[in-house]
Amino acid sequence: MSGEKLKVAIVGSTGYGGVELIRFLLGHPEVEITSVISSSSSGLPITDGFPHLSEIVLQNLEAVDPQAIAEKADVVFTATPSGVSGKLVPELLAAGLKVIDLSGDFRIKDGAVYETWYKHEAPAAELLEQAIYGLAELNGDAVKGSEFISNPGCYPTATLLGLIPALDAGWIDPKSIIIDAKSGVSGAGRGTSLMTHYAEINENLKVYKVNKHQHIPEVEQCLSQIAGEPVTVTFTTHLVPMTRGIMTTMYAGLIGTHTEAELVELYRHYYEGRPFVRVREAGKWPATKEVFGSNYCDIGFAVDERTGRLTIVSVIDNVVKGAAGQAIQNLNLMMGWDETTGLLLSPVYP
Amino acid sequence: MSGEKLKVAIVGSTGYGGVELIRFLLGHPEVEITSVISSSSSGLPITDGFPHLSEIVLQNLEAVDPQAIAEKADVVFTATPSGVSGKLVPELLAAGLKVIDLSGDFRIKDGAVYETWYKHEAPAAELLEQAIYGLAELNGDAVKGSEFISNPGCYPTATLLGLIPALDAGWIDPKSIIIDAKSGVSGAGRGTSLMTHYAEINENLKVYKVNKHQHIPEVEQCLSQIAGEPVTVTFTTHLVPMTRGIMTTMYAGLIGTHTEAELVELYRHYYEGRPFVRVREAGKWPATKEVFGSNYCDIGFAVDERTGRLTIVSVIDNVVKGAAGQAIQNLNLMMGWDETTGLLLSPVYP
Amino acid sequence: MSGEKLKVAIVGSTGYGGVELIRFLLGHPEVEITSVISSSSSGLPITDGFPHLSEIVLQNLEAVDPQAIAEKADVVFTATPSGVSGKLVPELLAAGLKVIDLSGDFRIKDGAVYETWYKHEAPAAELLEQAIYGLAELNGDAVKGSEFISNPGCYPTATLLGLIPALDAGWIDPKSIIIDAKSGVSGAGRGTSLMTHYAEINENLKVYKVNKHQHIPEVEQCLSQIAGEPVTVTFTTHLVPMTRGIMTTMYAGLIGTHTEAELVELYRHYYEGRPFVRVREAGKWPATKEVFGSNYCDIGFAVDERTGRLTIVSVIDNVVKGAAGQAIQNLNLMMGWDETTGLLLSPVYP
Amino acid sequence: MSGEKLKVAIVGSTGYGGVELIRFLLGHPEVEITSVISSSSSGLPITDGFPHLSEIVLQNLEAVDPQAIAEKADVVFTATPSGVSGKLVPELLAAGLKVIDLSGDFRIKDGAVYETWYKHEAPAAELLEQAIYGLAELNGDAVKGSEFISNPGCYPTATLLGLIPALDAGWIDPKSIIIDAKSGVSGAGRGTSLMTHYAEINENLKVYKVNKHQHIPEVEQCLSQIAGEPVTVTFTTHLVPMTRGIMTTMYAGLIGTHTEAELVELYRHYYEGRPFVRVREAGKWPATKEVFGSNYCDIGFAVDERTGRLTIVSVIDNVVKGAAGQAIQNLNLMMGWDETTGLLLSPVYP
Repeated sequence: MSGEKLKVAIVGSTGYGGVELIRFLLGHPEVEITSVISSSSSGLPITDGFPHLSEIVLQNLEAVDPQAIAEKADVVFTATPSGVSGKLVPELLAAGLKVIDLSGDFRIKDGAVYETWYKHEAPAAELLEQAIYGLAELNGDAVKGSEFISNPGCYPTATLLGLIPALDAGWIDPKSIIIDAKSGVSGAGRGTSLMTHYAEINENLKVYKVNKHQHIPEVEQCLSQIAGEPVTVTFTTHLVPMTRGIMTTMYAGLIGTHTEAELVELYRHYYEGRPFVRVREAGKWPATKEVFGSNYCDIGFAVDERTGRLTIVSVIDNVVKGAAGQAIQNLNLMMGWDETTGLLLSPVYP
Repeated sequence: MSGEKLKVAIVGSTGYGGVELIRFLLGHPEVEITSVISSSSSGLPITDGFPHLSEIVLQNLEAVDPQAIAEKADVVFTATPSGVSGKLVPELLAAGLKVIDLSGDFRIKDGAVYETWYKHEAPAAELLEQAIYGLAELNGDAVKGSEFISNPGCYPTATLLGLIPALDAGWIDPKSIIIDAKSGVSGAGRGTSLMTHYAEINENLKVYKVNKHQHIPEVEQCLSQIAGEPVTVTFTTHLVPMTRGIMTTMYAGLIGTHTEAELVELYRHYYEGRPFVRVREAGKWPATKEVFGSNYCDIGFAVDERTGRLTIVSVIDNVVKGAAGQAIQNLNLMMGWDETTGLLLSPVYP
Repeated sequence: MSGEKLKVAIVGSTGYGGVELIRFLLGHPEVEITSVISSSSSGLPITDGFPHLSEIVLQNLEAVDPQAIAEKADVVFTATPSGVSGKLVPELLAAGLKVIDLSGDFRIKDGAVYETWYKHEAPAAELLEQAIYGLAELNGDAVKGSEFISNPGCYPTATLLGLIPALDAGWIDPKSIIIDAKSGVSGAGRGTSLMTHYAEINENLKVYKVNKHQHIPEVEQCLSQIAGEPVTVTFTTHLVPMTRGIMTTMYAGLIGTHTEAELVELYRHYYEGRPFVRVREAGKWPATKEVFGSNYCDIGFAVDERTGRLTIVSVIDNVVKGAAGQAIQNLNLMMGWDETTGLLLSPVYP
Repeated sequence: MSGEKLKVAIVGSTGYGGVELIRFLLGHPEVEITSVISSSSSGLPITDGFPHLSEIVLQNLEAVDPQAIAEKADVVFTATPSGVSGKLVPELLAAGLKVIDLSGDFRIKDGAVYETWYKHEAPAAELLEQAIYGLAELNGDAVKGSEFISNPGCYPTATLLGLIPALDAGWIDPKSIIIDAKSGVSGAGRGTSLMTHYAEINENLKVYKVNKHQHIPEVEQCLSQIAGEPVTVTFTTHLVPMTRGIMTTMYAGLIGTHTEAELVELYRHYYEGRPFVRVREAGKWPATKEVFGSNYCDIGFAVDERTGRLTIVSVIDNVVKGAAGQAIQNLNLMMGWDETTGLLLSPVYP
């Protein structure tokens, strides 16, 4: 490697995804953060809002100015809300930047589907076409050398990594898939609301957006591609009183007879050479804390012979593998570096 | 009512179910607690282990002695572990006591099924026959005047109240039922373990006993009875980092076309006159905190037209409606009192 | 008692203090809630914002109109913010209502001191004079028969009940008092903020308003009155990741030699006939959960012979004894009822 | 640096301190972990008990055998309980190993004092003499080149770093020091107990070991050395419902007049070149989450002109700066490496 580091900028540095990008990129040996950018707080030290970065990040926040960003950086991460990215990313690309977008704006290839679920106008079709869906374990080859990545959503990451090998092998019925998803509260971001007010969600378990979550078309688009036929899923999202972590518990009818040990083997083979997916041995289940603060996705299985169904459990840290970590994994692939560069932090336990 | 109060004893007073019985019975206008009983701590003040009862419960704990209990009490609650109740309850009945048993020992009518799931010997068949399964909203009439109640499990209570009306109406396919259940940690009781060690389960979400939980045959027995055919369910249990609360998210294929509003109407009609089930209006979901500390079971629905599936969410406080509160509801029915006597405490919020 | 119930109204029904008043008043045998009032949500069902009250409270919220309130109620609780009560309460009194005010507006007798700490104009001096400071265990006699009560703050309640007997006995040096106070997050109310955003305060311990909390002059005013000389305290407030509960850990230099057993005796004697203060035996400490959901204040002591200091720990549920519960205790005293009427709910444990 | 890595072993690898050593040492560029050792689980994969290390740590746990350890390692960390280290460390030293001991056994120089507080026999006096007390910011020079380090306790680390500069400058009265300490539950270790049972400590705040905690003599020994006179402190420990984090809130009488800004300057000067202490600017307070997962100690101040007292707040992550992180900081100093090697992980936020 050359002595020169890659210059990266982060738009949306004052969200949870943004500060997590900073945490990992500070330890990334090939990268230098040249700008931390926030539309809401430009000119202020980032430590005003995030004192945990005191004496670590000395830069002030900058305004969102594509030309200025392009002068200082080669790659930009956009950890901006849906609707904002859709407008900003084309300008960043036009300014000559490589872009890794963490919003949902470029994940859905069909603009009409996007508009149905996201309730605002879709980006231009050629941009949707151009964006590589950065589920690294599936599309890693396409990510290599690309210049514009659409980083997957948190729920889809956990869901797809849990379902794809079995679906791809034809071991589960694509018409039977039910996904019961649970997320920690940081998934709702840093904007305050009654739903995320401590006294309302502590010691509470809530269900929300049943069958209406905007991550559903993202899951279905990818599963349909794997299955070679349209796949529609039942998808429930819950809010769990913890800060980080997603668990998706997935149910599907088994096609044929397969033991748990065979599933372990199938999955381990599918994810061979993909260091961030850890398939637990038969009879063992992952818990969200076992991936806390790390880029791992851990998966376990149960075959229910009584009902002929398969239960798959997949866990990630929503802020890492579900956002910032996977974005850096995509950066590594884009740049031709080892996929794990800067990402090999162990889970924080307990 | 007469001036004389009913004398009740509580075996297992040093478990969470036991102290919750005490909390409610202290405010019950028709009842007097004459003995608090614990095999492990007899002779000690209950406040040694539960200082929250200081200056409230002045009695010392007593040993488990059926004759002595029968001399002081008319009715006994056995909040004892499975395996213990199976041996103790026959002696209490023989001593002339009415019994409300909170263990799982008398819930499964088929001793062989019990032994498969509970891994120890079943009670005698005639006792299993004699025990009335005290799901008050279903079997309230049978409970009236009976002398021996087997109080339902926490997961089955939330599950069955959520499924029965739709199954009974023939609106859901009995072969399609999947139950994704989540519980607070108090459900594991007061015995210490690594699983319930604070630093292990705080900020964590775990899955356990997938398709193996001993509450499964209890759910299936009751659903089979409603459906008039054998029902087998897929049943997953999760441990959520909160103290109290159960949410069961249930999935089933819809038979025919039914709107959410029709489901609300069906359920409200089914539970008419049953004050502890609250069916939310269409589009609203219950959360566990909304029943915290109370005997309510709250239920909501979503019909997914895309997949033809119905999602039902049911919440209870596992220590109240899932244990002590339902046991007192059964006492009220047994004694011919109003079902709500002593139980109309509002949820504690926030 | 007469068959007719006392009619009460609650202004500020959509705050945590307001809904806790409702929880307790629903079970109060002498009281009927005739109006639930909210400036922000009038016309809506209270269950829109608080679905835990579904099928329990059927009334819609009403607007704040003193004349209308006076037509329907005899007594009004004002669970309104500081600054709002100061303006509203005079109108309610003028309309002929008895008032129990839960804000800080009438607690400080010296308007200039109020303005220094609260940063807005004090109410008229004659109203400050008229308001009885409703620390029931201290001023119970003055509360009896009065028509206007200023209910104590949450921190002052825990602090004063913990300090008064020792200070009154001359056992501690009034110049040496340090108060290290910790509160659950519900104390900050239902208004959303970054400070109370779940992902910010979960798994976190914060310190705030050091030596600047507006409860300091309230504590000092009362301690000065007991000591017969001006008392100034060092007072630190912390935010603890839990919903309910206050613990104040207090330090003072001992005057003379006193054992822990003597302190227990002193306090039990001081609080004789005051059922909501529970003094733990020597060597035992209270925890906040041991008063959760109840009106108790539990107190423990340690004498440190090495340093000659006394450590006092006092715990309350901030929403109950620190707000709604104490307000009802004051209502009971005002009306000449038993102090405990409607308040004898045991702590919810676990 | 040479290409050869330092070989280290960890005794007590199945405690929280042990796995945290592993987390940091895996990313330490100069170190190789050659043995993970546990008396209780030798022969088993460490991932049996800590599945978060799946595919990261492949070694099996080994038995405690000083000779075998010395054959494979140069330095050993003993994250063993007090009483165990006292016996084991002499054998490890005798086998030629450098030792960094995380227990309390070698912190107290006076064996009699040790025995008073720890309730078992002290190690031999010459070993107590030989052990360097590894509070790196105070004793860094002595640590360099030493072979046996006694790593400070978690409470003493936060306390001493917060008090030493002011005491050393003569700005606070050594007779007036009061320490109100709060810890997350992981500080109690992985052994299960009712005190750390989730349902008992969640949504609870407890006080324990008031004036009796075994860390008191450690604090006093060091403060006495700084003050040049015997210092006795009042010290209260609380258990807070969170996994990680210690906050010590400290009170002392100010000598002379000093502003908050002067204190900031004093502390920043004292800790110049000590990268892990971050002194907040005047008027800002640290929170425990702002150091979560990192080796930082953050400090803030308030001068109370009304009482003439200084309030100091110091926060650390008890598992990192209070245990494993500081131990590695000591290793770095011992070996002549940069103090921060392998330790520059940012706090995990949120």
